[in-house]
Amino acid sequence: MRMKSITQITGGTITSPQGFQAGAVYAGIKKDDTKLDLGILYSDIPAEAAGVFTTSNIRAAAVTLCQERLKKKNKVSALVVNSGCANAYTGSQGMKDCEEVASLAGEARGVPPNEVLVASTGVTGQLLPMSLIREGIKKINISPDGGRTLARAIMTTDTVPKEAAVYVKNSDGDYIIGGIAKGSGMIHPNMATMFCFLTTDAKVNGEFLKTALKKAVDISFNMISVDGDTSPSDTVVILANGMAGGNVISAGSAESRKFQKALNEICINLAKSLARDGEGATKLVEVTVNGAKGTGQARIAAREVIGSTLIKTAVHGGDPNWGRIIMALGQSGIDVELEKIDLSIGNVDILERGKPLPFNEASVVRALEQKDVPIYINLNMGRGLATAWGCDLSEEYVGINSEYMT
Amino acid sequence: MRMKSITQITGGTITSPQGFQAGAVYAGIKKDDTKLDLGILYSDIPAEAAGVFTTSNIRAAAVTLCQERLKKKNKVSALVVNSGCANAYTGSQGMKDCEEVASLAGEARGVPPNEVLVASTGVTGQLLPMSLIREGIKKINISPDGGRTLARAIMTTDTVPKEAAVYVKNSDGDYIIGGIAKGSGMIHPNMATMFCFLTTDAKVNGEFLKTALKKAVDISFNMISVDGDTSPSDTVVILANGMAGGNVISAGSAESRKFQKALNEICINLAKSLARDGEGATKLVEVTVNGAKGTGQARIAAREVIGSTLIKTAVHGGDPNWGRIIMALGQSGIDVELEKIDLSIGNVDILERGKPLPFNEASVVRALEQKDVPIYINLNMGRGLATAWGCDLSEEYVGINSEYMT
Repeated sequence: MRMKSITQITGGTITSPQGFQAGAVYAGIKKDDTKLDLGILYSDIPAEAAGVFTTSNIRAAAVTLCQERLKKKNKVSALVVNSGCANAYTGSQGMKDCEEVASLAGEARGVPPNEVLVASTGVTGQLLPMSLIREGIKKINISPDGGRTLARAIMTTDTVPKEAAVYVKNSDGDYIIGGIAKGSGMIHPNMATMFCFLTTDAKVNGEFLKTALKKAVDISFNMISVDGDTSPSDTVVILANGMAGGNVISAGSAESRKFQKALNEICINLAKSLARDGEGATKLVEVTVNGAKGTGQARIAAREVIGSTLIKTAVHGGDPNWGRIIMALGQSGIDVELEKIDLSIGNVDILERGKPLPFNEASVVRALEQKDVPIYINLNMGRGLATAWGCDLSEEYVGINSEYMT
Repeated sequence: MRMKSITQITGGTITSPQGFQAGAVYAGIKKDDTKLDLGILYSDIPAEAAGVFTTSNIRAAAVTLCQERLKKKNKVSALVVNSGCANAYTGSQGMKDCEEVASLAGEARGVPPNEVLVASTGVTGQLLPMSLIREGIKKINISPDGGRTLARAIMTTDTVPKEAAVYVKNSDGDYIIGGIAKGSGMIHPNMATMFCFLTTDAKVNGEFLKTALKKAVDISFNMISVDGDTSPSDTVVILANGMAGGNVISAGSAESRKFQKALNEICINLAKSLARDGEGATKLVEVTVNGAKGTGQARIAAREVIGSTLIKTAVHGGDPNWGRIIMALGQSGIDVELEKIDLSIGNVDILERGKPLPFNEASVVRALEQKDVPIYINLNMGRGLATAWGCDLSEEYVGINSEYMT
């Protein structure tokens, strides 16, 4: 029997790959002292690193710090992350504090400060409580089993920690990719920035790591939407410490294609768990657009459908309102002709070449009541294919977001 | 004492200008027989006409018909409009029905069918109930006092009819511009398409009428947002029958500038009443962005802020969460530097050159509790200025939209 070459590891997390440790404490940044709010990820040896960050023109201090350090091709030994305060819109003092946080973590772990990355999520417009962080950072104990603890420490409105890992059989030595993520709105500037931190013990060329991460993010985190807003702090970072041994994985090889495939899989897995746990969400919606004129158009259309408030509310209420999907395709600006569109919701075919098929309304209502709602659209205009994920919009979302600060 | 040259007419409506009549009936298209769902606007003499329509790539039959007739520079004598069924996504049969509706209205009013425009709003994906319309259209009685009746006949989820008129003192004969509008979501493909129908007895050159309407729509209806969705049926139409007499108003004259100003005023007035009556809305939010690098960037920024779900919910809950406004500016993609931004909410100054001012939280909460919530932003980057209008997002919005069809 031949084993699958990429396997999900049950209970896998960010410390599943060799040579990574993590830990976290409650430092007092969050109000609720039953939670964790300050954590460290540590690699036993300096790792190759790559990052993808928010597209916002106004970025939080930690994003600026990470971008500068990664640009200099620094190896990375640690990542320090806090929740409860995003240290965003805080000017030069915020930047100084961020640098101090990196130094403190470097000191605590005995690595040079410029080998440390920082990530912060929480309320914007407020400075970090530095005295609490100075105390807290010393108390963090790290261990090879600390992944779950770190996953909990980055949660804000998330209702569950998000973790995953895959085992990859490789001609030249097997390896693992692990990761954790948080973010319960697509992005919430005040509380639910999107973070994903990934690790691997694969030996990966730095340049290839960068392009592979960008590709994986494009088809995963860039294809989910909870509320369409973009945080100043969104961060995806991967560390590759090479401890699995073997030859360096570089672009263009069979090994690099397998690495890309595994990285895509774990990113999509984590992205879906973010969408499923969207604020107030009760369902995961998966929109696949096929037959577009090119991948670009398919991506735009899939995101337009997943992002429509009217579709989100219809899915929430189990309302078989297919006109709203056509509306979203029409407004997306891509090439589309009503007379060519095939549409199905769950396993119910709704439109064939733009014509409503006789369908049982109750069966659509039933499809919309499932935990997973797949919507499949074929535009029959070309070969472009893309999938996007989101969730329904509930009364609870409004409740969460209208009372956050007060 | 000098009279103001443009005056709002109390109780003014679409039949306030000379030579316009309107009327409506319940034809049975809507389920609720206490409502009106079929109406006609009629000009005593053929009028110059111009229109602005949905940007969606998939349009309803009525939009296609209007666009074709206006392209041929037809004069227009009547507009027939129904609510309850949008006749959208209905293919060639939908187009045939739409043409028949125009012919029936022309017959009823004794004008050539190609001088009739059509507008339909309501559920998508369903054909018009033609037998009911054939019967209903004969029963419509029009009168010079029928404006309010027509305003009611175009309502869907609107809670109040929207009407306005202005009186314009002109060197060469005074005139009136009147109008009605509907749309309680920015655009709701199934029930709340945006319509605005305008009339004037001014004698206006056809080409100028077209450009003037486009300009007025750009700073009014194109600057409101309830939920960011675009209907296949959005329609703004103006008829100018010239019955006020005087010389023809053409581009470049003092009279044309005054006409533009009056048209802007009535369009902004009606646009604001749409935003105020947004589905589930309890407040009108007005966002002014000043100091942008050009008007284009100011428009983008103002619409990004008004369109943010997070800001809508914060305003709804009276949450003084200014970070969300900075977040929206950052994600808008325009040129912006945190260190230059001034921000105030209501009469409370929040940021000066990017730095939080000491403000009383209670006073911001109070400002957010008002029926009108003005948000003023100066980017201090240039001279671009724009204003956008929207509303808060409430639990009720979700309720309305998750249960529409079922």
